[in-house]
Amino acid sequence: MLLYNNALSGNCYKVRLLAAQLGVGLELRDLDVLDRSDRPQVIGELTPVLRVPVLVTDDGRAMFESNAIIDYLAEGTEYLPADRYERQQVLAWQFFEQYEIEPNLAVARFWRLFAVEQPPAAWAQKQDAGRRGLEALERGLQGHEFLVADRYSVADISLYGYTHLAAEGGFDLSPYPAIRAWLERVAAQPGHVAISA
Amino acid sequence: MLLYNNALSGNCYKVRLLAAQLGVGLELRDLDVLDRSDRPQVIGELTPVLRVPVLVTDDGRAMFESNAIIDYLAEGTEYLPADRYERQQVLAWQFFEQYEIEPNLAVARFWRLFAVEQPPAAWAQKQDAGRRGLEALERGLQGHEFLVADRYSVADISLYGYTHLAAEGGFDLSPYPAIRAWLERVAAQPGHVAISA
Repeated sequence: MLLYNNALSGNCYKVRLLAAQLGVGLELRDLDVLDRSDRPQVIGELTPVLRVPVLVTDDGRAMFESNAIIDYLAEGTEYLPADRYERQQVLAWQFFEQYEIEPNLAVARFWRLFAVEQPPAAWAQKQDAGRRGLEALERGLQGHEFLVADRYSVADISLYGYTHLAAEGGFDLSPYPAIRAWLERVAAQPGHVAISA
Repeated sequence: MLLYNNALSGNCYKVRLLAAQLGVGLELRDLDVLDRSDRPQVIGELTPVLRVPVLVTDDGRAMFESNAIIDYLAEGTEYLPADRYERQQVLAWQFFEQYEIEPNLAVARFWRLFAVEQPPAAWAQKQDAGRRGLEALERGLQGHEFLVADRYSVADISLYGYTHLAAEGGFDLSPYPAIRAWLERVAAQPGHVAISA
């Protein structure tokens, strides 16, 4: 399968991580995250949103949205529960991730990595909103090994994507012991690969 | 089933709309969206994120995140495809909704409905980001009756939730003919109910 990718993107990393654990081979085609002028030409036919990752199957089916891509890949495997209520919980955490974690942790990290100037109020807003997201994640992990049914699943992969990079966005994880212990458990899973792998 | 609800919330409306179309009865318990001080006490045991909707089944299972709730309810019905690739597309649109539509259209609407003062730059940013989301939705709907497989599904319900309220957030839909025609098709579906129903 072909993955339109960016090496620094936590969203693209989710797909690479699950593919490594499933033993699925990916051909990577990297797109720039600063100069996006080629996107309509390169992926405009594949996704209406012009963001990576985009996965294209060998028979030409295109998919967008990182969490929806990994759920597709995980269907029928140990990484996505078969039970209907457990699947609801997996999705709930994944929607939470795109609503409260990614828009704050990933955007703050992007601003830092690429030295994008922001008004102090915008930076403070991202930090506050990101901390509220981390507090919710901490509550969800208290007393649990993993997010859903105490088994490693795509929910953990989705949340791990940017949470393990929190420091690069200026977030301090020391107030969140449940998150820190969970990050270590995720990184210890069979077949785990780093974002830089 | 018991729905922790707010009458004005487009996210809660998604659940009420699908439940009406499925003929599922809901007991509603409304929470305030301005004064949220009672939330830890009322729903703190049910959801780590303290937002509505929260759905509780008759046997006491709690669910959070609107799109994940409607996917649970729609499982095995005509409103959620069985085909693996079509399910991927449904999820992709739902994640897009929580990333590009809800944070802009719903937040701008909230600011307007409750006269929440914002700096002009914050208002302009929401309007620009919301328009980019609407442009992506317009591209996705061009040449299609509905978002996935040309059949009405939970993807349409998720996107309809706030898109049909765009004007209340200051967004003009006249540049988006595919969206306007699709909104009429969604509203004409059997069992459709309005947000005010």
